[in-house]
Amino acid sequence: MKGITDRDVESPIAAVELERSAGETIVLHGVIQRIRRLGWGAFIILRRHDGLLQCVMGAEGNESVLDRLVVEQAVEVTGTVKNARIKDSSIHPRTVELQLDSVRVLNSPAEQSPVDMTKKVLDLHIDTNLDLRPLSLRHPVERARLKVAETLASAFRDSLSGMGFTEIHTPKICSAGAEGGANIFRVKYFDREAFLAQSPQFYKQMGVGIFERVFEIGPVFRAEPHQTSRHINEYTSLDLEMGFINGFHDVMAVEISVLRKCLSALREINGYELEMLEAVLPEIPESIPAITLAEAHRIFLDMTGEDCTGEPDLSPEEEKVLCARSMEEWGSEFLFVTHFPTEKRPFYTMDDPEEPGTTLSFDLLLRGLEVTTGGQRIHDWQAQVDKMRAFGLDPDSFQGYLQAHKYGLPPHGGLAIGLERLTARILDVENIRLTTMFPRDVKRLTP
Amino acid sequence: MKGITDRDVESPIAAVELERSAGETIVLHGVIQRIRRLGWGAFIILRRHDGLLQCVMGAEGNESVLDRLVVEQAVEVTGTVKNARIKDSSIHPRTVELQLDSVRVLNSPAEQSPVDMTKKVLDLHIDTNLDLRPLSLRHPVERARLKVAETLASAFRDSLSGMGFTEIHTPKICSAGAEGGANIFRVKYFDREAFLAQSPQFYKQMGVGIFERVFEIGPVFRAEPHQTSRHINEYTSLDLEMGFINGFHDVMAVEISVLRKCLSALREINGYELEMLEAVLPEIPESIPAITLAEAHRIFLDMTGEDCTGEPDLSPEEEKVLCARSMEEWGSEFLFVTHFPTEKRPFYTMDDPEEPGTTLSFDLLLRGLEVTTGGQRIHDWQAQVDKMRAFGLDPDSFQGYLQAHKYGLPPHGGLAIGLERLTARILDVENIRLTTMFPRDVKRLTP
Repeated sequence: MKGITDRDVESPIAAVELERSAGETIVLHGVIQRIRRLGWGAFIILRRHDGLLQCVMGAEGNESVLDRLVVEQAVEVTGTVKNARIKDSSIHPRTVELQLDSVRVLNSPAEQSPVDMTKKVLDLHIDTNLDLRPLSLRHPVERARLKVAETLASAFRDSLSGMGFTEIHTPKICSAGAEGGANIFRVKYFDREAFLAQSPQFYKQMGVGIFERVFEIGPVFRAEPHQTSRHINEYTSLDLEMGFINGFHDVMAVEISVLRKCLSALREINGYELEMLEAVLPEIPESIPAITLAEAHRIFLDMTGEDCTGEPDLSPEEEKVLCARSMEEWGSEFLFVTHFPTEKRPFYTMDDPEEPGTTLSFDLLLRGLEVTTGGQRIHDWQAQVDKMRAFGLDPDSFQGYLQAHKYGLPPHGGLAIGLERLTARILDVENIRLTTMFPRDVKRLTP
Repeated sequence: MKGITDRDVESPIAAVELERSAGETIVLHGVIQRIRRLGWGAFIILRRHDGLLQCVMGAEGNESVLDRLVVEQAVEVTGTVKNARIKDSSIHPRTVELQLDSVRVLNSPAEQSPVDMTKKVLDLHIDTNLDLRPLSLRHPVERARLKVAETLASAFRDSLSGMGFTEIHTPKICSAGAEGGANIFRVKYFDREAFLAQSPQFYKQMGVGIFERVFEIGPVFRAEPHQTSRHINEYTSLDLEMGFINGFHDVMAVEISVLRKCLSALREINGYELEMLEAVLPEIPESIPAITLAEAHRIFLDMTGEDCTGEPDLSPEEEKVLCARSMEEWGSEFLFVTHFPTEKRPFYTMDDPEEPGTTLSFDLLLRGLEVTTGGQRIHDWQAQVDKMRAFGLDPDSFQGYLQAHKYGLPPHGGLAIGLERLTARILDVENIRLTTMFPRDVKRLTP
């Protein structure tokens, strides 16, 4: 028997700690991201968990060490922290550098990486970037987008936890799809057929009956055959559902509150990444404008002469034009569009009793793209059964789900934010594939 | 155009705030969990997001209101907070109750729930409990287990974030399985076949190359045909992977540190739930004992006369006996077992150069059940390719994964904790299905 203790568990020194350590001699780990050899020695840029550290090593007496160093080696270095003023925005921290005494190689690559890390921005074709994802993500700009997504998800969670929401985990293998339609993946589940969850919709509504307010951060799966820059087939959905609402505006208000916290968390935590990414964060005004779909179509008609009135949804072109108009007219890069027609929204959406044929539903647009859908749901059992029938669905196929309604459910509503879309719009990245680690699309299943 | 603001966003009053509000008149929402009518009036127990609130209403002048109240109604109540001393451990807070002035019904159930909420513990057959899950989870004891699981996941996340780990989201639809074997679900992915992730193993190792330390909390899928109390086919995996380890003991040490934080978070946050569940939390001693698989078999032989030496794994019976022995001998309900044989661990596991045929791998047992598997991974490309071949695998099928090794990867290791198993052992719940919202097993795909 051997006793294992956690007495010596250590965390890697954070960049902010390094900034306060001038004059100290330290030992730390990293991977050689770049190396620049000069007559007097070399600059060695170490990739670390939260930044790139500039290290300096004089040639004298270190010739053989320096000769052996190559990019992507895992090393342990010993050196003294010195004050510095570094301009390169990929470096973090920039107020100090490490004057190296020694370098110990822990592991060397079998071959040199095909991805050139010396470029400020990777100028790879997107397919190459994604084919080489385990390597391209080692570039500071590429991985920075994931850190931004991490903060957004984390701020979503923290702000909701602070508002009495419970975090839930719901099944991804299901017997029916929540969103309907053909865009659903089929799984062979032992001797039967099952489906991959298109959203946690049914489960979060059941969750309202249990915990009043619930949220989930997890994968959802959409078998959409589109190959566009704004679709991936597996994405991370930030879902919430809340009971005891007075109307769907309550859900929109909570979203505004959550987004404020997301943006302030980014400002607080990700200064390094945002500067390197040259990101200009959107501002959330005192209030976010909301227009109905009918109004949206009219504005688009006025502005472009193109008539979409009567269309059940917004076209990608309308989303762009309306966002530009929202910024111009109301000073908001965010824009709510409400009252989508009954036939365009799923069967659980509540109709607006005051505007028959439309629903108490909304989309949130940001910088030309829908990043959220939400609305009030039907909580009355009979109303839900009736709407299912009107949609040609058999209520018997939804017995588990309808238990929640039949035996009592508070008025409620919720929303879903696509994490990758939100990240892409906040960072102004054209293709959402670049905001996720390993995207899945019609053509891509690897790496 | 309408402006939506978050000015009036409110959180439901928390139980701890109610405890400090004696004398105040408040308005709040809830669902009637139980109602007990007496000559002088009624006790109305309201289910709220974080507890059950006892409300009291006198009969005089309220006869018609009280007559209309039924269980599972969503209500808004107005009343005065009064000091109280309540013994029922399902109630929270217990130091105050609400003296009601009025009750407004927001929604009534279509039928009365088949689940009797007046019982202290639901005595339903497990199949009935699971068939009626949207309702049975409304029982305070049933939902309390989910709150415990929520805290465990959250403490896992917070402790790792504090140690320089990055939270990642990796694809669940994959082109190959990480754990090998037949236990893999197949998905029809457009015109090809794909698989559901058995673990985020490949991706978290690639993540080490990117962020040095990564973790993920997400669903994993195992097509195991076993119908036992400790297997479900979709579960929540708490995964971590860390670079720059000196050996697999570093991973075990991090696990101890994380588990300490999990248990102290439970003590801090879930006093109400733990008392109601009559949970006795395990203590983590100064050090957790670690024995090799060979030692484990010998101890089992000594204790029971049953000879499992030579077996490549522990039997469920051995897990139980060894945990009892660990408590007796070393005062630890936790027990590490190490050095599983090469053929029993996946191809990415590093062999122990000092004990050929065995691996630098471990399981963590708690109260008779394996709750974690982990170990050191192969980081050298050639070594990994060789081991794949020795396992009869074609390295060409793992090209994306092997990019990480080929172009450089630090020494690393990691582990995976099954959230449901951990919760079940901590709460001493026999069937892990009861620690998750909507379990999936060979027979169960609904609700």
